[in-house]
Amino acid sequence: MEKVDIRRVSVKRILRSGPERVFDEVPVEEPLSIRVSHWFKDVQLTENLSVTMRTPGNDRELAAGFLFAEGIVQQARDLIELRPLGGEPSNEILAVLAKDVDLETWHAARSSLLTSSCGVCGKRRREAIVRPAPPSGQDHFCISAALMETLPGLLGERQRGFIATGGLHAAALATADGAIEAVFEDIGRHNALDKLIGWALLNGTLPWRDRVVFLTSRGSFELVQKAAAAGAPVLATVGGPSSLAIETARDCQMTLIGFVRDARFNVYSGDWRIHS
Amino acid sequence: MEKVDIRRVSVKRILRSGPERVFDEVPVEEPLSIRVSHWFKDVQLTENLSVTMRTPGNDRELAAGFLFAEGIVQQARDLIELRPLGGEPSNEILAVLAKDVDLETWHAARSSLLTSSCGVCGKRRREAIVRPAPPSGQDHFCISAALMETLPGLLGERQRGFIATGGLHAAALATADGAIEAVFEDIGRHNALDKLIGWALLNGTLPWRDRVVFLTSRGSFELVQKAAAAGAPVLATVGGPSSLAIETARDCQMTLIGFVRDARFNVYSGDWRIHS
Repeated sequence: MEKVDIRRVSVKRILRSGPERVFDEVPVEEPLSIRVSHWFKDVQLTENLSVTMRTPGNDRELAAGFLFAEGIVQQARDLIELRPLGGEPSNEILAVLAKDVDLETWHAARSSLLTSSCGVCGKRRREAIVRPAPPSGQDHFCISAALMETLPGLLGERQRGFIATGGLHAAALATADGAIEAVFEDIGRHNALDKLIGWALLNGTLPWRDRVVFLTSRGSFELVQKAAAAGAPVLATVGGPSSLAIETARDCQMTLIGFVRDARFNVYSGDWRIHS
Repeated sequence: MEKVDIRRVSVKRILRSGPERVFDEVPVEEPLSIRVSHWFKDVQLTENLSVTMRTPGNDRELAAGFLFAEGIVQQARDLIELRPLGGEPSNEILAVLAKDVDLETWHAARSSLLTSSCGVCGKRRREAIVRPAPPSGQDHFCISAALMETLPGLLGERQRGFIATGGLHAAALATADGAIEAVFEDIGRHNALDKLIGWALLNGTLPWRDRVVFLTSRGSFELVQKAAAAGAPVLATVGGPSSLAIETARDCQMTLIGFVRDARFNVYSGDWRIHS
């Protein structure tokens, strides 16, 4: 189910003892065109929405997660079909939207984001770019500190692409008991999370009210925003967070954990969800 | 000259011995709106070109590098002025383009990229997205394997933001003698390279015919493309490259080095520029 494209290349490896010719496995990176077919009044229109550089494999999940993160679709039934174009493997995917999905409003909102005044105030600009996230502070979900100790090892065993290449990010979904339900890899950290969210959207298991999202990357604003939109109460990352990631997590009552490594971690927001 | 914004936050650090309340320094992440003022016939127009999440500091360099990477400006004199709007610190910058800079052609090319047919062929799509890079295979530039051994240590000393936060990428420019001429940091690896390229553009020192670009990140297609557009004969990264990064480097005769760490490295393209 979870797959990721890898390619073998011939390289010159240079060591103190001298050069040697070896084969190395590298992650594939190719562009994916996401096209959408949608309805405007009674006319079905098709347009090119985005080109994203990604590692092929799970393109349906990636496209679904991307459309969810953009706020275009909210649930599986908003997507009638996700069809690779020109036969597989393909670098083009068509998302056929349900008749009641309103792409025009999305276009207008996106355009006003780009033209809205910004000025010196990061806060004002942030409000302009944050789309409403489901509140996640009213839940009773909590996790143990011990879970955070075990997650890196559990995830590491399932990062097949990373083990082969050393060059892929992973996004995982875990329960409070430490079961890892899914792992998606990609050369881009945003894509890895989009694939995870898209997988859940297509399975009808969003929002995540009692799950931990665990990423091998750092925690940036957009990753917090995506995880919040998917309803995740806890986001944990191997790297550290940015200032805006922390502010956003605090605003939406999400638990944000960083530097999960070597049996220690930092809690930047929502520490009430962690018990010893 | 090189500066990067850092913020101090209160966090709960959880260790095996129990929790403690500490202060942690994190990289600032805020949006930068890039606006351009350009001429269409005899009318001066202003438009919002892009919003990018970045670490404040060196916004002028970032904007200049972004405009260069997009193919909008080619040299310092294409930019009449780079002006933060609303007083500094600002999250909005205006680039005033010279009268002979043609933004309309850029818009048309960009639009045709998004609508060009893709199909199953990565190669065809890649040709559509690669913009012509200066050929760099005709030079006599070469470097020693020993240089690669010293670069990580030399760069590490100058990554002030990374030392404080553990969460910033760096882009450095080095000579064959191992002198590091500039280091720029950012939460985004693309931004770090854009700042480095923008700095050189504004200084009038592009193209880089005899320099090594060294990045702490992995090597993706877009980073190879940016470095090639800046004329760099050698791109070295701490992480590994993608398949498309390798293909692109080979196409444009660039030396691409990955996994520069622990006194060893891999050469994925252009190994003739490395002598022992």
